[in-house]
Amino acid sequence: MTLRAPFPAPFRGVVPPLVTPLTPEGEVDVDSVRRLAGHLLDAGVHGLFLLGSSGEAAYLTDIQRRTALEAAVEAAAGRVPVLAGVIETTTARVLDRAKDAVKAGADALVATAPFYTRTHPAEIADHFRRLRAGADLPVFAYDIPAAVHTKLSRDTVLALAADGTLAGLKDSSGDEGSLRRLLPALRAAAPAFSVLTGAELTVDGALLAGVDGVVPGLGNVDAHGYVRLYEAARAGDWDTARREQDRLAALFAIVDAGDPARMGGSSSALGAFKAAVHLRGIIDCPATAAPQVPLGEAEFAHVRSRLGEAGLLPEGA
Amino acid sequence: MTLRAPFPAPFRGVVPPLVTPLTPEGEVDVDSVRRLAGHLLDAGVHGLFLLGSSGEAAYLTDIQRRTALEAAVEAAAGRVPVLAGVIETTTARVLDRAKDAVKAGADALVATAPFYTRTHPAEIADHFRRLRAGADLPVFAYDIPAAVHTKLSRDTVLALAADGTLAGLKDSSGDEGSLRRLLPALRAAAPAFSVLTGAELTVDGALLAGVDGVVPGLGNVDAHGYVRLYEAARAGDWDTARREQDRLAALFAIVDAGDPARMGGSSSALGAFKAAVHLRGIIDCPATAAPQVPLGEAEFAHVRSRLGEAGLLPEGA
Amino acid sequence: MTLRAPFPAPFRGVVPPLVTPLTPEGEVDVDSVRRLAGHLLDAGVHGLFLLGSSGEAAYLTDIQRRTALEAAVEAAAGRVPVLAGVIETTTARVLDRAKDAVKAGADALVATAPFYTRTHPAEIADHFRRLRAGADLPVFAYDIPAAVHTKLSRDTVLALAADGTLAGLKDSSGDEGSLRRLLPALRAAAPAFSVLTGAELTVDGALLAGVDGVVPGLGNVDAHGYVRLYEAARAGDWDTARREQDRLAALFAIVDAGDPARMGGSSSALGAFKAAVHLRGIIDCPATAAPQVPLGEAEFAHVRSRLGEAGLLPEGA
Amino acid sequence: MTLRAPFPAPFRGVVPPLVTPLTPEGEVDVDSVRRLAGHLLDAGVHGLFLLGSSGEAAYLTDIQRRTALEAAVEAAAGRVPVLAGVIETTTARVLDRAKDAVKAGADALVATAPFYTRTHPAEIADHFRRLRAGADLPVFAYDIPAAVHTKLSRDTVLALAADGTLAGLKDSSGDEGSLRRLLPALRAAAPAFSVLTGAELTVDGALLAGVDGVVPGLGNVDAHGYVRLYEAARAGDWDTARREQDRLAALFAIVDAGDPARMGGSSSALGAFKAAVHLRGIIDCPATAAPQVPLGEAEFAHVRSRLGEAGLLPEGA
Repeated sequence: MTLRAPFPAPFRGVVPPLVTPLTPEGEVDVDSVRRLAGHLLDAGVHGLFLLGSSGEAAYLTDIQRRTALEAAVEAAAGRVPVLAGVIETTTARVLDRAKDAVKAGADALVATAPFYTRTHPAEIADHFRRLRAGADLPVFAYDIPAAVHTKLSRDTVLALAADGTLAGLKDSSGDEGSLRRLLPALRAAAPAFSVLTGAELTVDGALLAGVDGVVPGLGNVDAHGYVRLYEAARAGDWDTARREQDRLAALFAIVDAGDPARMGGSSSALGAFKAAVHLRGIIDCPATAAPQVPLGEAEFAHVRSRLGEAGLLPEGA
Repeated sequence: MTLRAPFPAPFRGVVPPLVTPLTPEGEVDVDSVRRLAGHLLDAGVHGLFLLGSSGEAAYLTDIQRRTALEAAVEAAAGRVPVLAGVIETTTARVLDRAKDAVKAGADALVATAPFYTRTHPAEIADHFRRLRAGADLPVFAYDIPAAVHTKLSRDTVLALAADGTLAGLKDSSGDEGSLRRLLPALRAAAPAFSVLTGAELTVDGALLAGVDGVVPGLGNVDAHGYVRLYEAARAGDWDTARREQDRLAALFAIVDAGDPARMGGSSSALGAFKAAVHLRGIIDCPATAAPQVPLGEAEFAHVRSRLGEAGLLPEGA
Repeated sequence: MTLRAPFPAPFRGVVPPLVTPLTPEGEVDVDSVRRLAGHLLDAGVHGLFLLGSSGEAAYLTDIQRRTALEAAVEAAAGRVPVLAGVIETTTARVLDRAKDAVKAGADALVATAPFYTRTHPAEIADHFRRLRAGADLPVFAYDIPAAVHTKLSRDTVLALAADGTLAGLKDSSGDEGSLRRLLPALRAAAPAFSVLTGAELTVDGALLAGVDGVVPGLGNVDAHGYVRLYEAARAGDWDTARREQDRLAALFAIVDAGDPARMGGSSSALGAFKAAVHLRGIIDCPATAAPQVPLGEAEFAHVRSRLGEAGLLPEGA
Repeated sequence: MTLRAPFPAPFRGVVPPLVTPLTPEGEVDVDSVRRLAGHLLDAGVHGLFLLGSSGEAAYLTDIQRRTALEAAVEAAAGRVPVLAGVIETTTARVLDRAKDAVKAGADALVATAPFYTRTHPAEIADHFRRLRAGADLPVFAYDIPAAVHTKLSRDTVLALAADGTLAGLKDSSGDEGSLRRLLPALRAAAPAFSVLTGAELTVDGALLAGVDGVVPGLGNVDAHGYVRLYEAARAGDWDTARREQDRLAALFAIVDAGDPARMGGSSSALGAFKAAVHLRGIIDCPATAAPQVPLGEAEFAHVRSRLGEAGLLPEGA
C-alpha cells in the first residue's frame, strides 16, 4: 500500500463506479480492472468507486470483491482516492467487508442502510455510527432505495453529517427535490461533508443545485464526457454543461439494449455498460455475473450502434 | 365566457396549481378564489391550474369543483389560459368531469391515468385517446404516481404526443432522470408539445433541461419568486435562477408544519399552503377539506415564522 | 321501495359482488342485472353486493351506478339485503354517492378509506365517522389495499367497530394473518360486527377462523358452489368445505384467460367473470367497460373450456 | 457428522425457525442453541430450521452462522432434519454459504430469490438451478417478499418443482390465495414436493388447504402448541386445531411489545421472541443483534405478562 494524503474534504469531482470486468469463466479479470482504472484516470476523473451497484457487488463473492478492489487500488497508485462499496445486509457483516476494504487499501467506505431486514431510522443511525467506530476509514452513506427499499431520511443524514459519523452521501435515490432541501442544511451543519449524486442523467442540474460530485455508471463508457460536464459546471458555463448532459442522456439509451421479455432492467443496463466498455477496447470480455441474462447478438449490435453515433468506437471497430 | 385565442403551443411559463379556498363551513369561497387568481395574475403567471392535488380536487364534490373553476375562469377573463384537473378513476367518469370543465370555460384539461383499478399501458393509452375524442379541449397528461400508483411510461407519452392525443405533460413524478431522457425525444416527435414540471424544488434544473414551464404548489405562496426564477432561466441567468430556487426551497419548509404523529403529509402540506396564503392576506380562511386534520396554533405559528423570514408577511401582520 | 326488516347483525352468509352487465354500447343492461340477481337468489345467497370492484364501480358513471343498483334492489325485493359500494376518493364525494344509494334503496353502504390522496389513520377514522353521521345506513369498511394503497389498521377497525361507526368489514386485503388476530378482538369488542372476506380462494380457512361471510367475485360464476361451501362450514363438515373450495380454486383459473402482453390482470379477471356468466346464459353480453381490453376469441374459448370441465355450461352450449 | 437417513419427501410437520441465542457481547451462545434445539425436539417438532429471518441470519457474520448451525446439528443428532438458511444477495454468494452449511452438517438448504439487485423470473429460475447444481443438498425456495421485495411466481415454482430443482417451498409471502391455487398444481406436478407455510397465524387453514408443514417463528416460544395444532389437523379434528390456533394467535401479541416510536417491527418481534424464550428459561440471554433496538423494561414486562396469561412461565418466574 502506498502512503496516502489525507482524504480530501469535501471530496469533489467525477467518481465513476467501475464495472467489474470478468473472464468468460466468471472470475475477476485483474488486467481489465487495471486497464479500466487507467483509462478513467487518463480521462481526468477525481476518484474511483469500486464495488457499487454498477460494479455488480451483489453478485461477487468476498474474494472476488477483494481481488477487484486491490487491482483498482494498485492502478490508482494514490493519484486519486479509491472508494469501496461494502454491501452487506447489516452492521456486523458490513464491518467484515470493511476490514477487507482496509486491507485492500481503500480510502473510504460506501455503505447502505441495512437491507433484507425491516429497519427503523434509529437503527439506521446506530448502524452507521457502529460502522464509523469499527472501521478506520471515512464512511459515505449510499442512499439507494431501489436496492435497499428504504430512503435515508433528511434528519438521519443531517445528524450523521453534523456529528462526523459520515464524510459524505452518495445519493442514488433519484429524489432530486429532497436533495435540494438537504443541500443548504448540510452546508450549514457540516461544510466539509461531500454530496455525490448517482443520478447520471441530471448531473448539470445537480451541480447547479450545489452537489460536490457525481458517480455516473455511464462514466465507465464516456468518462471524458462527464469530466467535461463537471468542468463546464465548475466554470459556470451552464450551456456547455447542458449540451454535454443532453449528449450523455442520449448515449444512456444503451441501457435499453436488452429485451424486457427475456431479462430484467439490471441485466440489460449492466450488460450494456460492459458491452460498451468492451467494444471501446478497454476490457477484454463483456460477461456479467450469473444469474444475470447475457445480452444476445442483436442486443450487442444495439449498443455498438449507439456508440458509433456518439463517436465512441475505436477506429476500425 | 369570453372569446379566447387558441391555446398556445407549446404552452409555457409559470402555472400555479391554485389551492381552493374554503369557508369555515367547508364550502368554496368564491371571493377568495377570485382574489387568489387576481393576485397570481398580478405576479405575472402565465396560466392557472385549477382542481389539481394542491387544489384538493380529490376532496371536492362535483359542484364544488365547478364553482371553483368558474370563479377562476371569470377572474382570468381570458388573460391567461385556465387548465382544469379532471380527477376521476376512469374514462367515462373523467369525461363527465370534462363536460363540467368545458361548461365552466376551461381552456385545457389535465387528466391522470386510471386509478383505483389495476391498469395496463394499452389501457392507459386508450383512456387518453377516448378522452381526447370525447372532450373538445386540449388534454395534458398528469403523471403523479404518488396518487395514481402508476408511472406513465416513456413509450406511452411519446406515442400520445406524436399522434396529437396529448397537448402536454404535467410531470409530478419526481423522476427527473426519466424526464431528461424523454425531453429530446419529445422535441423531435412533437415540437408543439408542452412539458410542465410539478417538481417545485428543482425548477432551475428542469428549465436548464428544457421543460417549458412549472406548476409549483408553492407558487400559491410566492408566485413572484417563481416568475423571477422562470424569467432568469429564460434569460440564461442561471446563478440568479439558482439563488431564487434555493430561497424557494427554504420557504418550502412550511410543509413540515404539521406534527406527523397527528396528521399525514398531505394535511400538513396543504394546510401550510393555505395558512400561508391566508396569512399573506389573499384568502379569507385557511380551512382544508375534511377529513384532513387542520393545523393547530403552534403549527400555524411555524408557517407564520417562515413567511416572516422570507419577507412575505404584509406589514403589521 | 319495499318495507324492510332491520339489517341483520351480524350479517352472515354468501354475498356475491355482482358484475355489472353492460350492453354492447357500454350502458347498463338492466334486464341482465335483474336476471343475474335472480339467479343468485335462486342459488341461495344471503345478500347482494353491488358496485364493488367486481362490479366495475370505478368504471361506471354516477348515473350508471344508480341504474345498476336500482335494478338489483328491485330484483331482490327485500328478500336479502343489498349492499352498495360508494367508491369515491374522499368523504364529501362518498356522501354524495351514499345519497344516491339511499335513494336507490340500498340496505347498507360499503366504503373504502380515502384514496388518490395521501392519508393518515386519524383521517381514515374521521372519514368513516363523518360517513356514518351523514348517511342513514349501516356502513361496512372495505379494506382493499390493492386499490386504495392503504391497509386499514387493526386499531382503526377495532375503534370504529366498538363505537358503532361500522357495522362490518369487507376484508379484501388478502392478509389472513392480520384478520386472524383481529377476529377475537372484534368478537369481544363488538359482537354484532360482521366480518366478510373477499378472499375467494381461502373461504374454508376463513370460515374456520370465524368470519361471518364471504363476498366472492367468482360467486357470480358459481354461486351454488359458494353456498354449498358456506353451509358445509356452518355444519362443521370441513372435508366437504375443503373439497368445494379446491374445486372453486381450480375454476378460478378462468381469470388467467387474458394474454398479459395485451391487457392487465383486471381486464383479464373481470372479462373472464363476465364471459363465464354470459356463457352460462345469465347475462346477455360479456362486455366490460372502457378502457379495459376485451377478451379475444381464444381467451373466450379458455373460459368456456374451464366452465365445461366444471360442468357449468348449459346443455347445448 | 452423524450418518443420516435420506431427506424425507415430502418433508412434513412442525419445523420451528430457531432464534439464534446471543451472549450479552453479541456472540453466538452455543449452549443456549443446544438447549433450545433440545427443548424443541422434546416438544416433538419434525425438523429444525436454522438461519432464517427469525434466526437473525441477516445480522450474523459468516462465522456466527456456522457456529449456530453446527450447534443445532449436533443437538439434533440426526433425530430430525436440520434445514439451513443461506441468505445472500445472489448465486455465487449463496453457494459460498451453501458450502458452509454442508460442512456444518445441514440436511437441506433454504434460499431466497436474489435481492438487493433488480431481478427477473428467468434469472430467479437460473439462480435456483445453479444453486441446486452447485450444492449437494435438497433446496427449498424461501418466498419472503417482505425481505426480498419479489414474489416467486406460480410458474417459477411449478417449473422448478417439476424438474426436481426444488425439494420444497417455504412460503412466507402471506399470500394464502396464491398458495391455494398453487397446491393442487404442485400435487399433480411433483408429489414429493413439500410446502411449508411460514404464516404462523393461519396454520389451521393452511393445513386444511393441504400444506405439508409449518415454520412458525412463534414455535420458538410455544412449540408444544404448534405440535398439538399440527396433530389435530392431521387427525381431521379441525375444532381442536382452530382453538389451538386461536390461542397461539393471541400469544402472538407479544410481537407488539416494542414501542413503534423507538424501534421497527422487526426489533420488536425478534426481541419479543427472544425475551419469551429467555423468560421460559430456555436460553440464557435475550439480546438481539445490533443495530436492532433492544426491548426496554416495560416492554419486557409486556412479554412476561402475555406468557403468564398463556401459562407458559416456569413456576416461580
